[in-house]
Amino acid sequence: MFFTSDNASGAAPEIMAAVARANEGFARSYGADDIMVRVKAQIRQIFEAPEAAVYLVAVGTAANALALASHCQPWGAVFAHTDAHIAVDECGAPEFFTSGAKLVPVDGAHGKMTPETLAQTLGRIGESGVHGVQRGMISITNVTEAGTVYTAAEVAALTAVAKTHGLPCHMDGARFTNSLVTTNTSAADMTWAAGIDVLTFGGTKNGCLGVEAVVIFDPAKAWEFELRRKRGGHLFSKHRFLSAQMEAYLTDDLWLRLANHANAMGGRLARGIKALPDVHLRHPVQANMLFPEWAAGTHARLEAKGAAYYQMPAPEGREGARLVASWNTTEAEVDLLLDALKS
Amino acid sequence: MFFTSDNASGAAPEIMAAVARANEGFARSYGADDIMVRVKAQIRQIFEAPEAAVYLVAVGTAANALALASHCQPWGAVFAHTDAHIAVDECGAPEFFTSGAKLVPVDGAHGKMTPETLAQTLGRIGESGVHGVQRGMISITNVTEAGTVYTAAEVAALTAVAKTHGLPCHMDGARFTNSLVTTNTSAADMTWAAGIDVLTFGGTKNGCLGVEAVVIFDPAKAWEFELRRKRGGHLFSKHRFLSAQMEAYLTDDLWLRLANHANAMGGRLARGIKALPDVHLRHPVQANMLFPEWAAGTHARLEAKGAAYYQMPAPEGREGARLVASWNTTEAEVDLLLDALKS
Amino acid sequence: MFFTSDNASGAAPEIMAAVARANEGFARSYGADDIMVRVKAQIRQIFEAPEAAVYLVAVGTAANALALASHCQPWGAVFAHTDAHIAVDECGAPEFFTSGAKLVPVDGAHGKMTPETLAQTLGRIGESGVHGVQRGMISITNVTEAGTVYTAAEVAALTAVAKTHGLPCHMDGARFTNSLVTTNTSAADMTWAAGIDVLTFGGTKNGCLGVEAVVIFDPAKAWEFELRRKRGGHLFSKHRFLSAQMEAYLTDDLWLRLANHANAMGGRLARGIKALPDVHLRHPVQANMLFPEWAAGTHARLEAKGAAYYQMPAPEGREGARLVASWNTTEAEVDLLLDALKS
Amino acid sequence: MFFTSDNASGAAPEIMAAVARANEGFARSYGADDIMVRVKAQIRQIFEAPEAAVYLVAVGTAANALALASHCQPWGAVFAHTDAHIAVDECGAPEFFTSGAKLVPVDGAHGKMTPETLAQTLGRIGESGVHGVQRGMISITNVTEAGTVYTAAEVAALTAVAKTHGLPCHMDGARFTNSLVTTNTSAADMTWAAGIDVLTFGGTKNGCLGVEAVVIFDPAKAWEFELRRKRGGHLFSKHRFLSAQMEAYLTDDLWLRLANHANAMGGRLARGIKALPDVHLRHPVQANMLFPEWAAGTHARLEAKGAAYYQMPAPEGREGARLVASWNTTEAEVDLLLDALKS
Repeated sequence: MFFTSDNASGAAPEIMAAVARANEGFARSYGADDIMVRVKAQIRQIFEAPEAAVYLVAVGTAANALALASHCQPWGAVFAHTDAHIAVDECGAPEFFTSGAKLVPVDGAHGKMTPETLAQTLGRIGESGVHGVQRGMISITNVTEAGTVYTAAEVAALTAVAKTHGLPCHMDGARFTNSLVTTNTSAADMTWAAGIDVLTFGGTKNGCLGVEAVVIFDPAKAWEFELRRKRGGHLFSKHRFLSAQMEAYLTDDLWLRLANHANAMGGRLARGIKALPDVHLRHPVQANMLFPEWAAGTHARLEAKGAAYYQMPAPEGREGARLVASWNTTEAEVDLLLDALKS
Repeated sequence: MFFTSDNASGAAPEIMAAVARANEGFARSYGADDIMVRVKAQIRQIFEAPEAAVYLVAVGTAANALALASHCQPWGAVFAHTDAHIAVDECGAPEFFTSGAKLVPVDGAHGKMTPETLAQTLGRIGESGVHGVQRGMISITNVTEAGTVYTAAEVAALTAVAKTHGLPCHMDGARFTNSLVTTNTSAADMTWAAGIDVLTFGGTKNGCLGVEAVVIFDPAKAWEFELRRKRGGHLFSKHRFLSAQMEAYLTDDLWLRLANHANAMGGRLARGIKALPDVHLRHPVQANMLFPEWAAGTHARLEAKGAAYYQMPAPEGREGARLVASWNTTEAEVDLLLDALKS
Repeated sequence: MFFTSDNASGAAPEIMAAVARANEGFARSYGADDIMVRVKAQIRQIFEAPEAAVYLVAVGTAANALALASHCQPWGAVFAHTDAHIAVDECGAPEFFTSGAKLVPVDGAHGKMTPETLAQTLGRIGESGVHGVQRGMISITNVTEAGTVYTAAEVAALTAVAKTHGLPCHMDGARFTNSLVTTNTSAADMTWAAGIDVLTFGGTKNGCLGVEAVVIFDPAKAWEFELRRKRGGHLFSKHRFLSAQMEAYLTDDLWLRLANHANAMGGRLARGIKALPDVHLRHPVQANMLFPEWAAGTHARLEAKGAAYYQMPAPEGREGARLVASWNTTEAEVDLLLDALKS
Repeated sequence: MFFTSDNASGAAPEIMAAVARANEGFARSYGADDIMVRVKAQIRQIFEAPEAAVYLVAVGTAANALALASHCQPWGAVFAHTDAHIAVDECGAPEFFTSGAKLVPVDGAHGKMTPETLAQTLGRIGESGVHGVQRGMISITNVTEAGTVYTAAEVAALTAVAKTHGLPCHMDGARFTNSLVTTNTSAADMTWAAGIDVLTFGGTKNGCLGVEAVVIFDPAKAWEFELRRKRGGHLFSKHRFLSAQMEAYLTDDLWLRLANHANAMGGRLARGIKALPDVHLRHPVQANMLFPEWAAGTHARLEAKGAAYYQMPAPEGREGARLVASWNTTEAEVDLLLDALKS
């Protein structure tokens, strides 16, 4: 019963097989491999963005930080939700890659900024001329850290606020595919059509070994991104092994199938939990992450039965948890956890 | 006939198999996987350094830049050979990760600093008090960019110069194993016993998919390195796939066997070339890289026969080349190239 | 009637005279001037800190940013009040000089952190190991941005919280002398005896042309500070003109007399305003800054009479203001403003 | 007999008087003072550049580093003479302000780059695509570190080489006025008309207390410069004291008169030295700096007579010196030094 994180799962067999297959003969290094030519075409087609610049890196933090640095000056403010990964879980990588930009937290229930909270926070920054940091860009995480999902319309409403200040808009899509599946939205509608300029398109958490695409819808930023990637130590020499993962991921809708499964398992778990007395779900369950709160003592009982997950702070007498379903979580595992909770 | 670079080769089958094997079940993320426990033990044993801190990243530029940044202040000078990878091939990654340290070139024939050139260059820096950058550290590349190899004694002579100024010493060992094989030296003797404080221990060029170990012999620097790695976007969530490569690489002397083969193919090529009239080898061939210079027109002839390699600048009427043998270069390929050259 | 800022005033005549006097003959440059020898002795004596390292720069932002950078790693969090100058009025200078540290806002009424709000905020950061930024240092502004003053005991209570986490403590004393005068406290008691490790000791706002001392109570940080100052472009060649300002400032208690006057004018203004109907002072007036809130329409009336000051946001139907008294504000000016308010 | 540096002299009386005069009443802070309005007009007129953006800082290192950072990306190479102040005397300030750009040394006799050495060095950088740093900008020091002077035609020849690569061109004019006086050239002809995009226009070494103008001929860079200046801690609150220096400096040709005098004293010294046996001048004397080399033992003799200057390295049996004449060096002092040398 492993619900710690979708990055505790391994790679989907199709993806592992593709990596093995890529290991034949010689290949041009540093992104000039043949597979990457096909990956670019795949992504441009999926996103209906024939001009988009497409790059691969192995780590989500790198994808985010490079995307931000390519769109925000050192004296810029990056507006993101208070709990955003870039703000709290990357050890200052955005500050490092941007040479010192400031992350400005935007509030909002269930991990989501609202046009109102964003507008209000934007209004507080950049009004003092040269004395304060300048409005730089916004970053929207979808799926959010709370496991909730922005619809394309909600994304568009946020980017509309940003655009009134001329700000570029980033989406941290470490779990991007899960958000598409939840909302039954196309990749294009969730991104450039909704005002997103640059996307971290995650593969790692959804069944790859370690690969994230950065999709830049305005190719004018492409060369700067390439230099930043190299300078950041994120340009792979044997790049084919990144390309192969992404190619397999995008072939035959594997990316969608994997996310669909993870979301389904999240939903099954949520339905089961909702039926239990004395367990409260802190956030709506819209993808593959759940944040239950239950009576004190439950952790010990679940641990004894072999359940693994992150514990979260909770009020006196209660316990909090984060449960993440993955591309390879089974119904049996879900049901085992539910049984353990019931007992 | 692929001699462009050892990073145009794929991964050795043992290593690819290990990656596939690692893809079973759940594993703790971010370097807490069980395989990494074994990798640390392997490296500490091989280097006879039970206290060493050991970390994995996927890219050599990252390994170098993080190693430098953890040992050199922003106002420090990093002394390295004029042609060092860190100085000319990493798009300023060392400057980026150190927040602005200065690479100071040290001359020397055949890609090698000498105690004299190093001492002389060290003497020119840091004498003007607060007005100039301070002596920071040195970095020795072994195998060098010219395909030559420092012996452990030569390394010790360089670090001795550095230590008179109290400077930490880094070794860029992207081709570290090749240097051990050439000199028949132990990993310990080539590193800490010769005054090296931190090593980039390359796997990628020698048959891995993409993995480099950073070995820090003074564990006091370990935590800073971990923070810099995370902040640089170089901490893998599915870290097991890095660990598995390194474990297989170090098992049953695979690392030594692969490098031994690459060096042997380099030697075979060198012997063949030396027998040819009108071809000159610019540097002694001591590992798997050769820098021949031949008559104009040869490139076209070789290309027509399917040979791939980098062209280098050359005087009027001549042509230069860089040929790199790899862990999977075959004798047949070497002989084909020699035949092509002869014809 | 100028109440815009204490930096809109010029320099006290004693200080200007000292600058003119310093302009005789040749002097060693870059801080090696004879006057600086005396300034160091003065400051060490005033602060009862014979080992303190003492440096001069011309701008408060530089003093703060250099002090922070010398005590906080790039991955550190700097805890300061939400409204602190370093957080909102320096265009990201702390982020720039520290190579990307994160400013973490600490709440508190009237511009003051409390041990509780500080402890609570400290508790939220640095608990996620390598994934989040680390607790770095704290910075206390005295006089605060709200014109209130921390007593030495209050400072000690904050540094005690910081010290439980081993954090260095900075004081932004742009208006340090005003805080001493208000609390009748010695420079030593307000700083190192209360747990402060490094102080920005302001001169500019209190009658100098442009000089701030950085006082580092742990001299182990001195050389790093010198390098950062030079590298930041803040080491003056004709340093004597900074030294001369500071020497005159500290001679015959001029610094205390000037701050005493500014505070007295602030107090006179506060007493007058409190006697007015329909004017509210947002914060206790403890030094030379007042934040009145009055009926809409007052701004226009005051402006017509020649009053100059900053306007602040206010609720519907009200107007806000910031009034700053200076070392050369006269009783007549204060009374004129009060008359204008009454009419 | 003070010949250590022109920054060991104080300020010209006209400039000191202007500073004292500026100390009247209140003034808008942060560069919005009335004097600065006039300074901008003066500089635009002198440079025949009605659109130029004009800023003041107090320190030459800051002026240079901010000018470079506003025109060069972090992955850029800054091409400057091997001995340039920005390369060897600013403790890495350019690297710090640019977030890690690389200073690439260009050779040339007597402190001067030539179109050939510049073109050759430019040709070595930026040819390896994403793997190396990119060509960023060039910086020309006039007067050079060797005391020689570029003519406007020589400047134009260098910028022409840079412009073939589309690079912006900076001039470090810490002793800019001395170069104009030597060559009898207008400020416009030496700068924008010769291809210079941004100038550090020094005041400090030529009779000011501490002020340097940065003149940006393409005003599109102005706002970025303002943000970098603030963020670098170089925006003065009591800015009027910088403005007043610059206004007086530029009034009634004071700047030209001061530099003319310094150059004349340099020339007088040079003529006297040339007449001496056994003294060699290493570089042509074209402004106010001389680099004599004389017999061992001379230093001791001169020191005994009270001469102060920097000693320079020299071959066995010889001694080297740097002598700098200043705006207030007297003929008597020059003659005293010559007498001391003769004896």
